[in-house]
Amino acid sequence: MLATLNGASKDAALAAMADALSAATDAVLAANSRDVARARSLGTSEALIDRLALTPARVEGMVEGLRQLRALPDPVGDVIRGWTNANGVRVRQVRVPFGVVGIIYEARPNVTADAAGICLKSGNAALLRGSSSAIDSNLAIVAALADGLQAAGLPAEAVQLVVGDRSVTAELMNARGLVDVLIPRGGAGLINAVVNGSKVPVIETGTGNCHIFVDASADQQIALDILINAKAQRPSVCNAAETLLVHQAIADEFVPKALLALQRAGVTVHGTPDVAAYSPDVVPAKPDEFDAEYLSLDLAAAVVPSVEAAIEHIRLHSTGHSETIITNDQGSANRFTAEVDAAAVLVNASSRFVDGGEFGFGAEIGISTQKLHARGPMGLAEMTSSKYVVVGEGQIRS
Amino acid sequence: MLATLNGASKDAALAAMADALSAATDAVLAANSRDVARARSLGTSEALIDRLALTPARVEGMVEGLRQLRALPDPVGDVIRGWTNANGVRVRQVRVPFGVVGIIYEARPNVTADAAGICLKSGNAALLRGSSSAIDSNLAIVAALADGLQAAGLPAEAVQLVVGDRSVTAELMNARGLVDVLIPRGGAGLINAVVNGSKVPVIETGTGNCHIFVDASADQQIALDILINAKAQRPSVCNAAETLLVHQAIADEFVPKALLALQRAGVTVHGTPDVAAYSPDVVPAKPDEFDAEYLSLDLAAAVVPSVEAAIEHIRLHSTGHSETIITNDQGSANRFTAEVDAAAVLVNASSRFVDGGEFGFGAEIGISTQKLHARGPMGLAEMTSSKYVVVGEGQIRS
Repeated sequence: MLATLNGASKDAALAAMADALSAATDAVLAANSRDVARARSLGTSEALIDRLALTPARVEGMVEGLRQLRALPDPVGDVIRGWTNANGVRVRQVRVPFGVVGIIYEARPNVTADAAGICLKSGNAALLRGSSSAIDSNLAIVAALADGLQAAGLPAEAVQLVVGDRSVTAELMNARGLVDVLIPRGGAGLINAVVNGSKVPVIETGTGNCHIFVDASADQQIALDILINAKAQRPSVCNAAETLLVHQAIADEFVPKALLALQRAGVTVHGTPDVAAYSPDVVPAKPDEFDAEYLSLDLAAAVVPSVEAAIEHIRLHSTGHSETIITNDQGSANRFTAEVDAAAVLVNASSRFVDGGEFGFGAEIGISTQKLHARGPMGLAEMTSSKYVVVGEGQIRS
Repeated sequence: MLATLNGASKDAALAAMADALSAATDAVLAANSRDVARARSLGTSEALIDRLALTPARVEGMVEGLRQLRALPDPVGDVIRGWTNANGVRVRQVRVPFGVVGIIYEARPNVTADAAGICLKSGNAALLRGSSSAIDSNLAIVAALADGLQAAGLPAEAVQLVVGDRSVTAELMNARGLVDVLIPRGGAGLINAVVNGSKVPVIETGTGNCHIFVDASADQQIALDILINAKAQRPSVCNAAETLLVHQAIADEFVPKALLALQRAGVTVHGTPDVAAYSPDVVPAKPDEFDAEYLSLDLAAAVVPSVEAAIEHIRLHSTGHSETIITNDQGSANRFTAEVDAAAVLVNASSRFVDGGEFGFGAEIGISTQKLHARGPMGLAEMTSSKYVVVGEGQIRS
């Protein structure tokens, strides 16, 4: 039923959901304070509590997110392509919702409202499997969203919180034929568990061990600006830089400048011996650090002898998210963008741009690091499948 | 390395592979006769032996298939979309190969050459896991293709036959990170085993329990023409019709005509009592026959009271392949195409048109009945992923 709703009906429901969530702010905050108190009593780290905790401004952010979805075009019904066969049969490929989308996520209550809104706008029923540590918050948010759905004349079941112990997650992963796609959102552990355990098709969203390679020909001021932006502007996100590779030919000149700029930005550099040779502040990098997604003000660094060596290093260590070259050499740029296998490859631009908002998608359910279906930022279009509609006047195949 | 080959190099390799396979016709036929003799000694049915057996014409068909791939446009490097951000950063989404594609299939040696050619043209390395009953044929075909690859200066490893007992199939299904996608081609048993057992992402190609619903307003001659074409033109394929649903309002007039036409076409009708009432030749349908993919000159048939009832019957029994309505009522057509959830929905046209060749794709690896990545006929474009290439002049995110 959701699948055939027109855009105006979905937008009216999003407005009602936003209003209902706004009206329920006090109840949501009260529920959230119970979650936070329980987490504190269990000795949860303050970093995790910061993700869990809601404030009036964070609830308002969720409300605003639902309102912003209204303004976006409806992806359902878009004609992707179409043609007329020689015999007059018309074929068009049209976007349709998946059907039922399961989202498995950690203790960030804002995902509950975001995912519900994106699923509704794309015509999908949402099964939301949040963390048990956010259960009171999630129940309060979903109750408000259900009020909004019903006020707009839609079934509350369009957005459902999946509650229960771990066996319920296993059921979700086994529900092939009932659930059309599962999207895990969270850390590597969660994502791997879903990817390996699920019989339902999964869209893997991403860990990002993102590299910046500063080529011999790079404009070094641009390299410094992008390095600091990609590493330090928001270190906790998946499109932040985690590894710096510098071409040997400019290492003597560039590495000291980079280390100084990084130090000023509060970044700890974990370097190979040839990087550590430039400063006593460089922490020796353990070999496995080049596979690390720090998500903090830490950066691995190495010197490489060539573009080829940089590409090979990235091939060995990349998570396939976003990889950057800083260069003024068109040949190096072409080679890097052709040979590096990742959702996004960047030339002279910050990897922080690899984001649904920055791409103009308006909403983002995550950044896919897999190759099937969607790769890179996933907006509303990526939350759809398609069907072929074939229309004739009695044509048969000869 | 395959991923960055230009189109001319791949086309030269396809030509060399075609020449080498043509030159090896005698060796391939000799190897195939060993497979056929072994199958006969094991009591294999003649239907399966017909799939396994090669003739000079069938080998020539494989050669021709490779040559036809040359004429198709290279999907790799196609720009799917692109834009320039307000800050001047250019973003383009470009088609790239998956990387390594595994094909798991049954004892049809022609799939070996077809799949190898499609994978090469789309820039993917092919891991071909054929049936052990076709092992001699497959080894001879792959040896010829390897000769062609090497004559064109490409590594023979671009096309590999995966040989060994069942544990090798399990390894293939567990090779996440090494194999990018698995495509099973064959019967429902094979497909289900791969879908349920694989940690590598799978594209499910399809079983087709395809329905034809003849609405009250249908042009009955068109309905008869399409029914006979969809059922009898080639009953063994997945886009052939398997179930006929007739609107009650025209059953007295249409069902007897349909039964007569089907009988003349050699089709056995398995009907509900209200269909059987029209002719003693109708075989009573067991309830599970409405879930059957006969792939033979058999057809299930029922009378339904309304368009809604037809849609509901299809919802319960469809495999999501191709579903057809014959109608002159625009409202019925719109409702059917909107509400029926399948890779293709057809109005007044034969489901036999749902095919990569008929769609003008030129080559087809299969027809996907899943919703992720590709749905419907899969041509060369569907054998690719994409990457975002982001180019700037030092822009950073504020």
